[in-house]
Amino acid sequence: MKVVSGMREKRDKDLAQIKKGLQEANLTEAEVIVRGAVHSIRDMGEFLFLVLRRYDGILQCVAEKTGENTLPELREGMTVEVSGRVRQEERAPGGIELAAEGIRLLSQPEPDSAMPLPIGKRKLSASLEKRLSLRPVELRNLEERAVFRIQEGLVRGFREFLHQQHFTEIRTPKLVAGNAEGGNDSGGANVFRLEYFGKRAFLAQSPQFYKQMLVGVYDRVFEVAPVFRAEKHNTIRHLNEYTSMDLELGYLDCFEELMELEQAMLAFTMDLLRKEYARELSLLQVKLPDVSRIPAVRFEEAKRLVSERYGRPMKAPYDLEPEEEHLIGRYIKEEYGSDLVFVTHYPSKKRPFYTMDDPEDSRLTLSFDLLFGGMEITTGGQRIHDYRQQVEKLIARGMNPEEFADYLMAHQNGLPPHGGLGIGLERLTMKLLRRENVRETTMFPRDVTRLRP
Amino acid sequence: MKVVSGMREKRDKDLAQIKKGLQEANLTEAEVIVRGAVHSIRDMGEFLFLVLRRYDGILQCVAEKTGENTLPELREGMTVEVSGRVRQEERAPGGIELAAEGIRLLSQPEPDSAMPLPIGKRKLSASLEKRLSLRPVELRNLEERAVFRIQEGLVRGFREFLHQQHFTEIRTPKLVAGNAEGGNDSGGANVFRLEYFGKRAFLAQSPQFYKQMLVGVYDRVFEVAPVFRAEKHNTIRHLNEYTSMDLELGYLDCFEELMELEQAMLAFTMDLLRKEYARELSLLQVKLPDVSRIPAVRFEEAKRLVSERYGRPMKAPYDLEPEEEHLIGRYIKEEYGSDLVFVTHYPSKKRPFYTMDDPEDSRLTLSFDLLFGGMEITTGGQRIHDYRQQVEKLIARGMNPEEFADYLMAHQNGLPPHGGLGIGLERLTMKLLRRENVRETTMFPRDVTRLRP
Repeated sequence: MKVVSGMREKRDKDLAQIKKGLQEANLTEAEVIVRGAVHSIRDMGEFLFLVLRRYDGILQCVAEKTGENTLPELREGMTVEVSGRVRQEERAPGGIELAAEGIRLLSQPEPDSAMPLPIGKRKLSASLEKRLSLRPVELRNLEERAVFRIQEGLVRGFREFLHQQHFTEIRTPKLVAGNAEGGNDSGGANVFRLEYFGKRAFLAQSPQFYKQMLVGVYDRVFEVAPVFRAEKHNTIRHLNEYTSMDLELGYLDCFEELMELEQAMLAFTMDLLRKEYARELSLLQVKLPDVSRIPAVRFEEAKRLVSERYGRPMKAPYDLEPEEEHLIGRYIKEEYGSDLVFVTHYPSKKRPFYTMDDPEDSRLTLSFDLLFGGMEITTGGQRIHDYRQQVEKLIARGMNPEEFADYLMAHQNGLPPHGGLGIGLERLTMKLLRRENVRETTMFPRDVTRLRP
Repeated sequence: MKVVSGMREKRDKDLAQIKKGLQEANLTEAEVIVRGAVHSIRDMGEFLFLVLRRYDGILQCVAEKTGENTLPELREGMTVEVSGRVRQEERAPGGIELAAEGIRLLSQPEPDSAMPLPIGKRKLSASLEKRLSLRPVELRNLEERAVFRIQEGLVRGFREFLHQQHFTEIRTPKLVAGNAEGGNDSGGANVFRLEYFGKRAFLAQSPQFYKQMLVGVYDRVFEVAPVFRAEKHNTIRHLNEYTSMDLELGYLDCFEELMELEQAMLAFTMDLLRKEYARELSLLQVKLPDVSRIPAVRFEEAKRLVSERYGRPMKAPYDLEPEEEHLIGRYIKEEYGSDLVFVTHYPSKKRPFYTMDDPEDSRLTLSFDLLFGGMEITTGGQRIHDYRQQVEKLIARGMNPEEFADYLMAHQNGLPPHGGLGIGLERLTMKLLRRENVRETTMFPRDVTRLRP
């Protein structure tokens, strides 16, 4: 019987291995075999410049058209194995170039069809609608794929930092019997419904209930997972399915600890990006924000400041309108040089039923949002941990505690003082990369009109 | 304006800090402050044994009932801050004990209700149904919560190994316009449907299409995310929502590389568990399987071997019945001492339309399952990368290639030879921990009758 034990050595090398090989042997050139996709071809008459696209970057190959080389007819989208001599070449991307001696075809695109986008170009000039419809191919563009490498880094930063802080990663259900944000005024309307073996089920709008239950088990928990909102908004900042990076922290002394945790997480993540995603940051020409000091301003003060500074009348007294968020961002940038700002103590009326009211003024809550570039990317706050207090607040809002029996089981049997936050991953990516539309930083966005690809 | 910059120092300590503090100062006792939930109380007459439950383990406290101590009336489920002198004590769990001098109450359970389960006991004797209904509290049992710490370790092993192997983490949509496993005979029936702004949408049964598209972008991709199956099976091994650990690998030379990758990933993961989850492994008395050498047997041979050895007539010629999987597991354990076995070359009839047929015998496929303890935990295989070949196979199966236009866009514009696999996280956890029912290793399971909590 055959036995599987260990991974075979592949004869092709990755770019780091090649560079290391050259350096260690102190060679200016060496024989190598490399694989990749044909990203672009430039015909120079007697020879071709062939750029291979690989997970670890691009490699420029030079293939002479004459002589003894076996050169198949090359097209973009083919995948090939190139053998030849690699040499240091300052003018080539990554500082090395491969003089191709043999090219073996591994796979090819459909011969009768043309690439729908010039993915080999640096910038794609097509409309966002067209680009999104062609995502399976469009993401092969080097800048486009770099966006989601950065996004991977953001998720890794969140997870690795919280792991160091002794958080446990949880997996909570997305099919639920009740509406997790039931206390929110608009909660009933923006939830997806489906039939579940003769019962009605909902798609989870957030892991809120579950992370609170589990803070009673693990003290500190997090989850990175999809959430679903049936909102009819069709704006540059709304998605109907997005990735929420959620955490919940037990044994809080005050809700400010949550902001401190988020600031420290962001600092850790920016360091991780600098260290491990330098190629992508450079390709996208991203300047990372300074997150070492993030101002925090109270809701009422923020409203007053922007009203005074920019002469904008306050309309919605209990919430921040998108334009107000934008102006707060602008004010903080002008006054403090920061791209980020915490807004704290939101009015109780506009926060969900599980939010802890401010003991100093019960019209307010121990809650916050984090704005980045004038857009909310995080909502967080301290939660009610006491059973009776939570039941009373539900009743005061005209809600029925019996409908929340599973959730309240946690409070009933004791929960530590706790709070948490949720970060919209696609919005964070959007603001970090200074994109104009959250769809640009979503691999396969879902909105009111888009369910494909 | 306030500024958020760095995390405050907390006056309470974690257990590792306390032990390190004692060792470094070469002390036998020291003043500390510790927080935790009251896990159990044992009244010894003049004093109490109070066990605190914390994310990092349990801590035994001794509280005298008399003297100058401020001792509130203690109940299970309270959370407290205990100050006192910690000392080395071999008989205590973790080797240290805290002589409580002050106990401050942080939160408390509802005074009028009793714990629905004796969570302080080592084993819970309640039925699985009852335990699942009480999950928000039941998971506070030390053994139960350890199950999902191990599960966290399995996910970390998968991700960290693949990250080292230069895979990119992807995020694919769970709301989809088409049925990802459309080619499967039963694909149409077991998918959840919902209304999506006047259109029909489905919940993704797998990220299959997306990971293949993205192998054309990043060469190597993975995702750990929920998948949804509307199967009506109510068995010990089926869930209607589960976590799939998926990967797709480009530039394959042969499909056996996928099994080698999985074996190496499992070896890495078992090492990670040994190093970082020793407390949980010991609590659950888990003996990790030897995954250093995993036998691989062809489908037809496996069927023949168990039929000969155990005298079981072969009924379904194109698939393995659960009992056959069980017997293959038994055979391999008896003959080779391995808990795991790869079964390869499944018949084409029972594999989805994207599976690569075996060029040596087109009735078979370049595919495999991994069985663990006689149960399938992984399905994988090489995929068709050529556009025309894929279109022809779709047509031969009576399917309409136009319905797969988004997916086929990737093939049409060139994909490397590739393959991948998916691992059911809850089943892997179940087999590793030798549990009898996959619901036991799912935090909040979803089955035909269960949608709560």
